[in-house]
Amino acid sequence: MATESAVKLLDFWVSPFGQRCRIALAEKGVEYEYQEENLSEKSELLLKSNPIHKKIPVLLHGGKPVCESLIILQYIDEVWPEKASFLPSDPYARAHALFWADYVDRKVYECGIRFRKTSGEALEAATKEFVEILKTLEAELGDKKYFAGGDTFGLVDIALVPFMSWFYTYEAYSGIRIEEESPKLVKWAERCKERESVAKALPDPVKVYEFAERLKKRIGGK
Amino acid sequence: MATESAVKLLDFWVSPFGQRCRIALAEKGVEYEYQEENLSEKSELLLKSNPIHKKIPVLLHGGKPVCESLIILQYIDEVWPEKASFLPSDPYARAHALFWADYVDRKVYECGIRFRKTSGEALEAATKEFVEILKTLEAELGDKKYFAGGDTFGLVDIALVPFMSWFYTYEAYSGIRIEEESPKLVKWAERCKERESVAKALPDPVKVYEFAERLKKRIGGK
Repeated sequence: MATESAVKLLDFWVSPFGQRCRIALAEKGVEYEYQEENLSEKSELLLKSNPIHKKIPVLLHGGKPVCESLIILQYIDEVWPEKASFLPSDPYARAHALFWADYVDRKVYECGIRFRKTSGEALEAATKEFVEILKTLEAELGDKKYFAGGDTFGLVDIALVPFMSWFYTYEAYSGIRIEEESPKLVKWAERCKERESVAKALPDPVKVYEFAERLKKRIGGK
Repeated sequence: MATESAVKLLDFWVSPFGQRCRIALAEKGVEYEYQEENLSEKSELLLKSNPIHKKIPVLLHGGKPVCESLIILQYIDEVWPEKASFLPSDPYARAHALFWADYVDRKVYECGIRFRKTSGEALEAATKEFVEILKTLEAELGDKKYFAGGDTFGLVDIALVPFMSWFYTYEAYSGIRIEEESPKLVKWAERCKERESVAKALPDPVKVYEFAERLKKRIGGK
C-alpha cells in the first residue's frame, strides 16, 4: 500500500511530457520513485491509474493518480508550495502562462509527429509551420531570461524545454537549422539546461534520434 | 478605450466554446458586452486580441484579452470569486476536474467534426468511438447531480453542456440515439438546462443542425 505521502512517477525516458514532471518534481525538491514503463506492454498499475488514455506520465500521490502532464505540473505546484511557484498568482498572468503551455502542446509536439510520419509536400508543410512556431515562441520569449519574466522558471519553460532534446531529431528530419531560425530560443534552452532539474531530466539528443529512427522503422513512424 | 472593469466577449452563436464563456459569465453574474463575429470576415479586434489562433471566444477584460475557453473559464472563476467556484480548492479534485474538461475538448468536439466531414467506414468508426465517449462520460457522472458531485455546477458541466445543443446534429449524422446510449447523461443535460445560465446560452438544436448543413454544403464540411 502506498503511504499517504508516497510519490511515484510512471514514465518513459524519451517522453517530453514525462520529462516535464521530472523537472517539476526536481524543482520542488520532491523525492519520488520512478517507474519506467514498457509502452509495448504497459504495467497493470499504468492501465489501472489512467484507464481513460492509458498513457504516461502518471503521477501517483499517496496512491491516487494524476494524469496529463500540464495538469500534473499544476498539481505539483499546488501541493508543494514551499518552493518557488511555476505559475503567477495574478489571474491574468496565470491565463497567459496557461495559454502558452497549451500552445506548446498543440503545436510543437504535433509538428514533431509530422516530421517522423510524413515526406514530400506534407513534410515541407510541417517544416514551414515549425519555423513559424519557433519564431512565434521566440517573439513571446523576447529578451526575457525565462518565459514568465524575471528569474521565474515557470510553467511555459517546463512545458517547452523537454522538446529541446528532440530538436536534433527535428533538424535531421526537416533539414532546418534551429539555431539559425531562433537563436534566442536556443540560448534560452542553454540557460534552462544550466538548472540541475533540467540537465538531469533531458536525455542525450543522439539517443532520442536513435529512438525515433527505431520507431520509424518498426511501425512506419506511427 | 475600455475601462478597467469592462468585459467584452468576442464569440459566435453556435460555438460550444463560446457558449461555455456565456454560461460562466452568467453564473458569476458578470455584465458584459457581446460581440458576434463573422468568421468569414473576422473583426480587427479579434485578430488583434488573438493573433496566435485568430479564434473565438476571446474574453476582453479591461481591454486585455484572454483566449481559449477552458483558460477563460478558470480566469472568470478566479477574477469573480464572490459566486460559487467552478473548481474545487483541493488540488486533487481540481486536477480531476481539469482532466475531464480536457477529455471533453479532445474527444467530444473531435468526434463532432468527424461526423460532419466523413462517411462510410470513417463515419462508422467515429460513431463507435462516440458511443464509447458517451458511456465513459456517463460512468464518470454516475448518479451525481453534476459532475463535481453535490450541488456544484462546475467546470466539467460548463465544458460539456454546450455540446448538448449539437447532439441533435450528431444523431442526424451518426444515426445513433443518444438517449438510448446514455440516458443518465441526457437527464444530466436536462438538469443543466433548468439553470438560466445554460438555457440562455444554448441555441435551438434544429438551428445548429441547419448551420452544420450549410457549412457542409459550402465548404465540404471543413
